[in-house]
Amino acid sequence: MQIREFADVDWPQVWPIIHEVVQAQETFPYDPMMTEGQARDIWIESPPGLTVVAVNGDRVLGTAKMGTNRSGPGSHVSTASFMVAADARGGGIGTALLRFALDWARERGFAGMQFNAVVETNHSAVNLYERYGVSVVGTVPGAFIHPAHGRVGLHIMYREL
Amino acid sequence: MQIREFADVDWPQVWPIIHEVVQAQETFPYDPMMTEGQARDIWIESPPGLTVVAVNGDRVLGTAKMGTNRSGPGSHVSTASFMVAADARGGGIGTALLRFALDWARERGFAGMQFNAVVETNHSAVNLYERYGVSVVGTVPGAFIHPAHGRVGLHIMYREL
Repeated sequence: MQIREFADVDWPQVWPIIHEVVQAQETFPYDPMMTEGQARDIWIESPPGLTVVAVNGDRVLGTAKMGTNRSGPGSHVSTASFMVAADARGGGIGTALLRFALDWARERGFAGMQFNAVVETNHSAVNLYERYGVSVVGTVPGAFIHPAHGRVGLHIMYREL
Repeated sequence: MQIREFADVDWPQVWPIIHEVVQAQETFPYDPMMTEGQARDIWIESPPGLTVVAVNGDRVLGTAKMGTNRSGPGSHVSTASFMVAADARGGGIGTALLRFALDWARERGFAGMQFNAVVETNHSAVNLYERYGVSVVGTVPGAFIHPAHGRVGLHIMYREL
């Protein structure tokens, strides 16, 4: 498994991953009716941001985007988002993408990384982030409507770099 | 003082308010080099969002924008932002705009209102929000570089409606 910068040729494999994740409505506060064009606009970053794919040979197993969280006086803090193909979960792809994003942000001189909206029932994400020193700094109660659990909290998570 | 929907004719008075606030770099994580066109794109909401002005006769004293905070499973929570002209601060304009925004969100059926990035040294905003039942749910440490205080925290604040 290798992580490399997203290229146009990857999109036919990236879009189904995004589509499955947003349709499930379990982990991202994204519009489930999002079109392919909207997904591309949201997910594919322009410099200074970056979008990457985790690949095994020709197969895309997951994707991440990373960039600046806020502008001006907030632009020293980075953010990132991660999606892994449903049948590739539990295999360390998310871990590899998170490590990549943290290294990327550190190398570019960001002071920290913030995750703005981590669904509190997404235990695999919360646990992964915590293993890498990203802590919950607060939870907005009931800010996400989960199809099975109803209104659940959205964590804000942060680590200094 | 009256609050009404923003109209094109207000822009020549709204832009200097935004310009002063972003140049000060004390309260908004917005790019201080923001152009007039970028400011207009950021501040003037399209439906279902709304931008309003607080006016005294022909004079614009302050402005607010309000809308949906996140998409899809997060779209039941609203957000809002407020700016008051420097020489009109302390006169209740912010209070009137906040009350307007909370009423607007309640009437439209939003379950809550979230403020994503309240600079912790912006005591007038923090105190105002708290008076209206909006509580700090967490603080991202050092996420804002203040010109006088250096790295200060950004509060996430929330109230249920």
